[in-house]
Amino acid sequence: MGQKDKRGGMAMVAFLQAQNCSNYPGSWRHPAAPTDFLTAKHYQRIARTLEESKFHLAFFDDRLAMPELGDNFEDTIRHGIRAVKLDLIPILTVMGMATDKLGLGGTCSTTYFEPYHVARAFATLDLMIGGRSAWNVVTSLNDAEAANFGHDEHLEHDLRYDRADEFIEVVLGHWATWADDAIAADQISGVFADPAKVRRLDHAGRWFKSRGPFTVPRSPQGHPVIMQAGQSGRGLAFAARWGEIVFGSIKALEPGRQTYRQLKDAVINAGRDPNQVKLVPAIFTIVGETRAIAEEKRAFIESLAAPEDSLTLIAEVTNYDFSRLGLDQPLDDAQMAKVGANLGLKARVVERSGKANPTPRDFITFSKRGTINEMHVFCGTANDIADEMEAWYTGEACDGFVLAATHRPGAYEDFGRLVIPELQRRKLFHTDYAGTTLRENLGLERPVVTHAAPSRKAMDKVA
Amino acid sequence: MGQKDKRGGMAMVAFLQAQNCSNYPGSWRHPAAPTDFLTAKHYQRIARTLEESKFHLAFFDDRLAMPELGDNFEDTIRHGIRAVKLDLIPILTVMGMATDKLGLGGTCSTTYFEPYHVARAFATLDLMIGGRSAWNVVTSLNDAEAANFGHDEHLEHDLRYDRADEFIEVVLGHWATWADDAIAADQISGVFADPAKVRRLDHAGRWFKSRGPFTVPRSPQGHPVIMQAGQSGRGLAFAARWGEIVFGSIKALEPGRQTYRQLKDAVINAGRDPNQVKLVPAIFTIVGETRAIAEEKRAFIESLAAPEDSLTLIAEVTNYDFSRLGLDQPLDDAQMAKVGANLGLKARVVERSGKANPTPRDFITFSKRGTINEMHVFCGTANDIADEMEAWYTGEACDGFVLAATHRPGAYEDFGRLVIPELQRRKLFHTDYAGTTLRENLGLERPVVTHAAPSRKAMDKVA
Repeated sequence: MGQKDKRGGMAMVAFLQAQNCSNYPGSWRHPAAPTDFLTAKHYQRIARTLEESKFHLAFFDDRLAMPELGDNFEDTIRHGIRAVKLDLIPILTVMGMATDKLGLGGTCSTTYFEPYHVARAFATLDLMIGGRSAWNVVTSLNDAEAANFGHDEHLEHDLRYDRADEFIEVVLGHWATWADDAIAADQISGVFADPAKVRRLDHAGRWFKSRGPFTVPRSPQGHPVIMQAGQSGRGLAFAARWGEIVFGSIKALEPGRQTYRQLKDAVINAGRDPNQVKLVPAIFTIVGETRAIAEEKRAFIESLAAPEDSLTLIAEVTNYDFSRLGLDQPLDDAQMAKVGANLGLKARVVERSGKANPTPRDFITFSKRGTINEMHVFCGTANDIADEMEAWYTGEACDGFVLAATHRPGAYEDFGRLVIPELQRRKLFHTDYAGTTLRENLGLERPVVTHAAPSRKAMDKVA
Repeated sequence: MGQKDKRGGMAMVAFLQAQNCSNYPGSWRHPAAPTDFLTAKHYQRIARTLEESKFHLAFFDDRLAMPELGDNFEDTIRHGIRAVKLDLIPILTVMGMATDKLGLGGTCSTTYFEPYHVARAFATLDLMIGGRSAWNVVTSLNDAEAANFGHDEHLEHDLRYDRADEFIEVVLGHWATWADDAIAADQISGVFADPAKVRRLDHAGRWFKSRGPFTVPRSPQGHPVIMQAGQSGRGLAFAARWGEIVFGSIKALEPGRQTYRQLKDAVINAGRDPNQVKLVPAIFTIVGETRAIAEEKRAFIESLAAPEDSLTLIAEVTNYDFSRLGLDQPLDDAQMAKVGANLGLKARVVERSGKANPTPRDFITFSKRGTINEMHVFCGTANDIADEMEAWYTGEACDGFVLAATHRPGAYEDFGRLVIPELQRRKLFHTDYAGTTLRENLGLERPVVTHAAPSRKAMDKVA
């Protein structure tokens, strides 16, 4: 595998949510979806399924509020539209205790937490699971999240990224304050660690101050892998600067190749090795023993969607209350101006509908939000899906994939049992883990920290 | 057991730290102490040992900075004086995955976190471990912690408690927003939960705003158990208002009885049932097959202490830099005024030394900080220790104990194999867990949340 392909083979990532449904809100209504999403065994079952199929990473997104339609959460609760959102650190730890090789990544916002806390929590997770963790860096965009954290509204887009830049500097800074070989833990001499190999960060910037010394030594992979999702101008620069796994949304091979080239160029311009940044687009897969089975499955899965799902989730990203409008009443210019531009959803609806003043129904139809068709769907036999994945991977539209689940754990079981073996036959995907840490398994370099050698004087003081 | 003793038997709590040493900084130098404190197996080993002996709870304290001597952390690192501090949520989760009945509690500061985050993290932990978690509420007191979180200094004592009161109102508020029976998860009808059984908190107070709806439903024990350590005036009132497990420091039976009565009276005055608040003093135990063995063990354990341990840990709580003074140079009045009053340490040193201007060496000698003698030590045979514990328990100086470890896991293995069976023979301690949740096992009432019944109209809307 490695010898045939300088890129190391496809990176395979599962896109998970610590909630009652997958990315697809209708997923909980699937009759084969267990309803034990509030228990450890639910997440451990998924983790074991993914590790059995040699997935590199299970990664969770997060929001710090449930979606609402205006000020009304009745539909959210009644229809289970991402109504539950659990904290990710316990979930990732639980999954780590059921697996040995699977990477485990979680989202944490730079907007509502302190960098010292995020650095400590993820570094501890990384130690507990033996160097398999990843931190997905996001800037929060939602007014409801702001309201839960006592802010009146979220920060403006570019400022959020400036703050996020500094946030990540502090986190990476703390993670580099202990040298890899700092600890001696010598019970005979009483030397615990070499003081010359631990440093104070002493950060004082525009947004943050954090002094140190940090209290978590290095993990087997050095520190957690950095994930990012930025695709827009400022977000792309952020991803190119910091990201090691960058996930995005690609709808077809050709535009995908452009996005890929754009990111890799930005990475090179940032002075980094483009092979050390994996671009992985998010997709759904629906696989059947035959095409007919796959198409029937798709129709059934699509039938699980409710219109309330879409409107509620559109409101979540646009921060706009559609509930006061009729479904077929066009938004006037003043109303359109109030619809937030997050994730490019508004622009897509205007472009695809060809209307400057679309209706709420247009927002549903053309954003496809809340349905599986919001992302690209690979649907067919194992061969069909492997063909498409091969074309995207070898065509350099991506370095791998982030698989969202039409339902859990079924979508991962189907993919693992039918598609993964086909990808392995084609030598596109590894047949076993290369090592035990996420960096080893993804071919990412382990960051090394060596501080100055201990002075003779410092060591003498102990003796 | 239960029938003989209305108090339900002794509560047994282990006092742990997610760091390289136990409460006793010298513990890591013990030759039988494994040095794998950065791995999951270290904490899982301790958890299994405690569950085998039917401990109710393993509880971790925390500081958000390492101790230092003035601006110098060389001794801290070299001697391993609580130099490592891991985040508790992954540690508690890891231990929960290795046990079925053991309660798992962690400290989280009301000073440097947002209540929404703390509510979500502990509620998720509580779900993942099946209703066995506890949150130890502290207000932070250390300048180094403030510096890691970008503050210039910590809040004044009473203000910290005012803020903590509001913090806990928000956390408990969010925890009570989902009714116990809110979720239907009915895949056939598509009803996920009853909107009438989920409420928005909408808190807006002096210190915090948090809107909701909260995104974590109730756990098997309702919500995590609340722990508190306050003993002083404002801290006592706080503990009496909120605490379900209150831990403290008691040095002998008689003053212990007074402290116990004082807390129980305060609980009654706060309108609560005194049996629903367990007072558990922190102690060390050193048990031997004979008294001679126990005394030899004690001498060996005491020999592991270094003077740097004491001075560094005194500096941590007093926020005073003793490193600029000679060990035998009395602090002048101006210097004494700068020594912080936290935990009553300064007052104890002045009282016990009989000096208004003690030296740094007096601070070490009379505070005993950094040695096992900072807390009360029960040392002797299993019978000796059981006698003392029985006297304190039946004499109503406590409802149980918080056992700090002279070394890990040895101190818990010795106690579990020698003392626990003797306490069980005397019918002072349970022989098995009463249930699976921490509340069941401690005899604490499960808080019930029932909101108004769903209106016909709300349910019709789904159909």
